[in-house]
Amino acid sequence: MNNMLDSISKPTLLLDSERAQRNLDHLLRKTTEQKIILRPHFKTHQSHLIGRWFRDVGIDRITVSSIDMAEYFAADGWQDITIAFPVNTRQLPQIQTLSEQCKLGLIVLDPGTVQILGENLKHPVDLWIKIDVGTHRTGLLPEAHGQIQSILDAIQQFNQLHFSGFIAHAGHTYQARSAGAVQVIYNQTLQQLTALRIQYQSHFPDLKISVGDTPSASVVDEFGAVDEIRPGNFIFYDLMQEQIGACAFDDIAVAMACPVVAVHPDRLQWIIYGGAVHFSKEFIVLENGNKCFGRMVNPAGNSWTTDNASQNPYLISLSQEHGVVQCTPATFNLYKPGDLSLWLPVHSCLVADAVAQYFSVEGRLVDHFRTCKS
Amino acid sequence: MNNMLDSISKPTLLLDSERAQRNLDHLLRKTTEQKIILRPHFKTHQSHLIGRWFRDVGIDRITVSSIDMAEYFAADGWQDITIAFPVNTRQLPQIQTLSEQCKLGLIVLDPGTVQILGENLKHPVDLWIKIDVGTHRTGLLPEAHGQIQSILDAIQQFNQLHFSGFIAHAGHTYQARSAGAVQVIYNQTLQQLTALRIQYQSHFPDLKISVGDTPSASVVDEFGAVDEIRPGNFIFYDLMQEQIGACAFDDIAVAMACPVVAVHPDRLQWIIYGGAVHFSKEFIVLENGNKCFGRMVNPAGNSWTTDNASQNPYLISLSQEHGVVQCTPATFNLYKPGDLSLWLPVHSCLVADAVAQYFSVEGRLVDHFRTCKS
Repeated sequence: MNNMLDSISKPTLLLDSERAQRNLDHLLRKTTEQKIILRPHFKTHQSHLIGRWFRDVGIDRITVSSIDMAEYFAADGWQDITIAFPVNTRQLPQIQTLSEQCKLGLIVLDPGTVQILGENLKHPVDLWIKIDVGTHRTGLLPEAHGQIQSILDAIQQFNQLHFSGFIAHAGHTYQARSAGAVQVIYNQTLQQLTALRIQYQSHFPDLKISVGDTPSASVVDEFGAVDEIRPGNFIFYDLMQEQIGACAFDDIAVAMACPVVAVHPDRLQWIIYGGAVHFSKEFIVLENGNKCFGRMVNPAGNSWTTDNASQNPYLISLSQEHGVVQCTPATFNLYKPGDLSLWLPVHSCLVADAVAQYFSVEGRLVDHFRTCKS
Repeated sequence: MNNMLDSISKPTLLLDSERAQRNLDHLLRKTTEQKIILRPHFKTHQSHLIGRWFRDVGIDRITVSSIDMAEYFAADGWQDITIAFPVNTRQLPQIQTLSEQCKLGLIVLDPGTVQILGENLKHPVDLWIKIDVGTHRTGLLPEAHGQIQSILDAIQQFNQLHFSGFIAHAGHTYQARSAGAVQVIYNQTLQQLTALRIQYQSHFPDLKISVGDTPSASVVDEFGAVDEIRPGNFIFYDLMQEQIGACAFDDIAVAMACPVVAVHPDRLQWIIYGGAVHFSKEFIVLENGNKCFGRMVNPAGNSWTTDNASQNPYLISLSQEHGVVQCTPATFNLYKPGDLSLWLPVHSCLVADAVAQYFSVEGRLVDHFRTCKS
């Protein structure tokens, strides 16, 4: 192990900048070639430093998932921010301030909320109507023309409100288990949003279509007639994306370093210091039916290697601070108590939010919106 | 709604001090009557302020789940701390410092770790041997006499290491769904640990037995021949404990306040601002087979009421910041976008760790070990 790993004494999220920048370069090449706006979702990394990597390659529009997160990135100079979450009118004063500071995009689903925005905001804001393209989390159904029209009518009452277009998140791609299945969902999404564009563009010739999920962004080669995409997770990827088919193990750019604290030869298990408060309780289900909360990788040079990752030990359960690791006879003797182990996470967004800071593999502390004092 | 709730604009964990203190009083009465040491686990609340409530009623011994958490409470004056987690030898310098500051209890599972402690620590520490009473997370099996003896032999090489006794966490009570099932597990635990006590007490006449889980602490009336119990969750309780039968809805002392941001009449669902980063991804499975990540309660006076809680809307899924709420025709119209809703959590320890601060129902900010800058 290198000196950086030697110095780690407790659960620590490591960031491999090279892998992350490679993920960014790969997607940026696709969107640039196709003249599509890449408006990356910053809820995954929630970091000023990592955000600046995007700025360095010419990206100047971003997505966030909360008003507080918008403030965090506005404070670092971002001037064009979409909050991809239904407007929370209980935070109107913050929305007002943000609308003075930057070009602000908001998501609306009902005319009542539009009315509140119109009556309270003084500066221009962009409003997107959220469409439910099949995920059934939130959004208006594409055929809900009465509701859509009532929102448009409300928007047009107020000079400072600008209708930007239709926005969707095809979150049901997370149920897909192949590139082909993701492509089918993307095609349906595009079809639904294109139909809306055709219907409303005579009145709103500039209306845009915005989609955003990492599986589609990763798997789809030709994005077609969308104006922008808003993936976030792709900067790090994770085991869930690997299972979907959106990335390879070797694309995953974060790993949790955890001390081994006990071993149980009778059931070929280790206990690591690393639990639900570090990994979150998100899991995938493996082909053998077991839950997996993380998968081991081996240290290599300044980072890690994913060779034979599918044969490596995995986290089979988590409690608050403990992780239980399932090994095989071939892997059980790799580590003993006191050794440090490295783990690819199931859901990188939640892992980063849980630990609220990163260390680069060179040992540099990287900020996170929720960076803790402790 | 009262003024405190009116002022909440984003997900906020509320603490009902009266309910929490009632939970503390109830358990303390049982342990005092039976002359059993209550060494509460502070991993649930992780708060100086809440810790002081325990001190105010005469408790002077505590349990924590990490070395960092031990430091947090030592800094607030706690002088007798057990770290109920296998020793992480990568944090030896911190352990050394803690052992100078307070009476420190550590958990060991192998002679190699004991050897490292003996060779490195200068001040006295108490060592507990962890026994696996059936949870199969970690610990030595009660019949592993060879391993137990090898640990005792290692301890006796070093003057500053003191063998305190056998410690267990019957975590399999979390699979129980009735008080009777919890009692059966408690009886088995007591039987296993008592057999160990009988076997080793001729050489170690002062050896103690320590058990600790909230279901047993709540359900068992007569603790029998244990020396101390170490429950933590009971101070707040949660929906998981209610499902086990360890508490009633009305005993749950924390609730998450979340704005409603969208409503979907077609499927009787609301969307709240409150997701996995606030509630964690822990869930229970309801009798109807649905997952439940939280259950609504109604504001009442300065707090909330749990009347008819089992009929209230519940969180059926969570993404990073969204919560999807399942209502019935009778409850769907209770709230509209912009209203504030209150939610009992599934696992209060993880919820508190996720949001890393509380507000008392009187509006006072309460510290948490992980209190964030943001």
